[in-house]
Amino acid sequence: MIRINENYLKLNASYLFSDIARRVADYSKKNPDKEIIRLGIGDVTLPLPPACIVAFHRAVDDMASEKTFRGYGPEQGYDFLREKIAEFDFRSRGARIAADEIFVSDGAKCDTGNFQELFADDIAIAVPDPVYPVYVDTNVMGGRTGGYREGRYTGLVYLDSNEENNFVPDLPKKRADLVYLCFPNNPTGATATKEQLSRWVRYAHENNALILFDAAYESFIRDDSIPRSIYEIEGADEVAVEFRSFSKTAGFTGTRCAFTVIPKKCRAFAGKKKPVFIHQLWLRRQTTKFNGVSYPVQRAAEAVYSDEGRKQVRQLGDFYLQNAAVIRKGMGALGFPCHGGVNAPYIWIRGDRDSWAFFDMLLDRAGVVCTPGAGFGRCGEGYVRISAFNSHENVERALERIARALK
Amino acid sequence: MIRINENYLKLNASYLFSDIARRVADYSKKNPDKEIIRLGIGDVTLPLPPACIVAFHRAVDDMASEKTFRGYGPEQGYDFLREKIAEFDFRSRGARIAADEIFVSDGAKCDTGNFQELFADDIAIAVPDPVYPVYVDTNVMGGRTGGYREGRYTGLVYLDSNEENNFVPDLPKKRADLVYLCFPNNPTGATATKEQLSRWVRYAHENNALILFDAAYESFIRDDSIPRSIYEIEGADEVAVEFRSFSKTAGFTGTRCAFTVIPKKCRAFAGKKKPVFIHQLWLRRQTTKFNGVSYPVQRAAEAVYSDEGRKQVRQLGDFYLQNAAVIRKGMGALGFPCHGGVNAPYIWIRGDRDSWAFFDMLLDRAGVVCTPGAGFGRCGEGYVRISAFNSHENVERALERIARALK
Repeated sequence: MIRINENYLKLNASYLFSDIARRVADYSKKNPDKEIIRLGIGDVTLPLPPACIVAFHRAVDDMASEKTFRGYGPEQGYDFLREKIAEFDFRSRGARIAADEIFVSDGAKCDTGNFQELFADDIAIAVPDPVYPVYVDTNVMGGRTGGYREGRYTGLVYLDSNEENNFVPDLPKKRADLVYLCFPNNPTGATATKEQLSRWVRYAHENNALILFDAAYESFIRDDSIPRSIYEIEGADEVAVEFRSFSKTAGFTGTRCAFTVIPKKCRAFAGKKKPVFIHQLWLRRQTTKFNGVSYPVQRAAEAVYSDEGRKQVRQLGDFYLQNAAVIRKGMGALGFPCHGGVNAPYIWIRGDRDSWAFFDMLLDRAGVVCTPGAGFGRCGEGYVRISAFNSHENVERALERIARALK
Repeated sequence: MIRINENYLKLNASYLFSDIARRVADYSKKNPDKEIIRLGIGDVTLPLPPACIVAFHRAVDDMASEKTFRGYGPEQGYDFLREKIAEFDFRSRGARIAADEIFVSDGAKCDTGNFQELFADDIAIAVPDPVYPVYVDTNVMGGRTGGYREGRYTGLVYLDSNEENNFVPDLPKKRADLVYLCFPNNPTGATATKEQLSRWVRYAHENNALILFDAAYESFIRDDSIPRSIYEIEGADEVAVEFRSFSKTAGFTGTRCAFTVIPKKCRAFAGKKKPVFIHQLWLRRQTTKFNGVSYPVQRAAEAVYSDEGRKQVRQLGDFYLQNAAVIRKGMGALGFPCHGGVNAPYIWIRGDRDSWAFFDMLLDRAGVVCTPGAGFGRCGEGYVRISAFNSHENVERALERIARALK
């Protein structure tokens, strides 16, 4: 009898974003002539940078001629892209990362989701709360948790992120072998200082743990004292894997390109305590289950690192950060404490009622969609996330409407 | 302590294609002025069909303007593509498959590799021998086998495919809950008749088993009596999942697009015998771990189904099938029994010595690279696979060189 992986049955049935979609659809039905402004989902709105478009077209032309056609490429990505990444994203900031430590992929969601496959079933997992649900759900599917009870899965170590710790969680009191961290954070927009990250790196060394560091939003950091990569911390190359994405950096959410960095020194353990290099495991995983990213897409991503590309990507980030500043200012003026939104495209706002009630109020009275913080975990209750990904005009109109609604 | 998934340590360390690459590199070093003709790896050589190139460029332009820009798309693929697939690949051949039963992905390797995640650890797995290694290795990683002994993993049910059964395996004598089948077959080039597939569908019904049917090479079928899809068999929609790819059909090996078909009726079981629909499980898997295929790539794939696209794809297939015929004829004339290569791009050739010796002989004496059959499993010993993916000129030159070498 073909029996399923019953861990799937443990998954909490309610999907945050489908819940939101249902409420928005209900509102539209009742208010057919009211226009909705969406500041909920974290999807970019500006087109691809012109440098990427030029390179993308050129690479499509390569596929049109037998002489320049590319069939299967390396599963880990083409060297032309890996070398640019290593140079501009890491070495230029003093992080010693080599091109062959970069694994190009079609998304940070895929990589953060698939990575847990490399580890034993009975390790202890720590995740932040609030959390990007992929870290949790993929470990539920992998059988590393118990059931869902009162908003949390038993067996997981939750790292509370709240106003007291400025949304940078403290070290866990219980054992944690695999620790997910995300800075700049989704959903809170918090960033971590060098000292805070150093504490986590030290923890990983002392406890033989591994850090999975999600840096998908690093390109929004404007404060030079904040590390953009965990490899700016001494010793991180032995204890941390880093996930990056072109999605938010360069508008690739629909084009699909990302990468994962695994320094060759980065270790886990087999048996009693035999070191095993994670680079080799992931290489084996990727060559067996993945066939590389589309060649024209890799050429478009490469153009992110050209002179024009770097300028255009910087402008793209500035554009959304201007929105973030407008949102912070507007919501702050209405008396709501705002976090994030400075070196991050998300503003984490404490409302005056529970998350879903605040969500409903913004939708019903202002026609504005946000994301209820409770959807990201227990510590998100009372907050909403507003995303800076939209036009300046829409963001300004949204804030005017909210101000009017709350008068 | 962060401990690894020790199932990875069971994986047979020798990689078929890296072994080949090493021997080819050695040969090149010793014979720097001899040109090598590669008929080993199954990678296409002709460029993308012109219809795909036009659509690809147009979609890249969509990404250049805020009005037509696409961010995150549906994880399951855009309806424009899913509807074309359902209509042209299935309904036109009498298979009742709906657009929402199609899951667009970036590769059949990914899908055939990831699919085992949906099932329990202790089900019995049957794989053909010779076999596409991804079916085996991903189940080893998933902990569904024992160790590697004498060329096979303990705990797997191997379905011998040989001259006696015309490379279409008989039903297993041991229990099998999950059965991998591939027709037209990689590596043997064998096809299965309607009667043969019906027997497997009946087996799945009678044994509450599930068939994973890999049809990545269906576009090479020219004989109309051979089913192109398992859904041409009555009752298959309850017991079979089908994998397809644009890689070989339309030259997408470097462009990356494929799809998996899961009829809504298709079931597995939870607990004692509670039916669970696989469509829902895979949807949950994909929405959690995947973010959809690049929008321009999906537009390029859609163009495969345009009037011109269909003509061009047919010509592409004909081109490689002409090569296959030349290889069959040439190797047959030299006295080597040839299988496949009629409705498939692979020719499976019985040599006069063991696989690797035959491989070495072709390389050393003719400068031609093939794939030793033993690399695909125990039943492949004594055979080599020659691939039809190359230019007419190279295929003809390769056969002349082989004929000369064997004189």
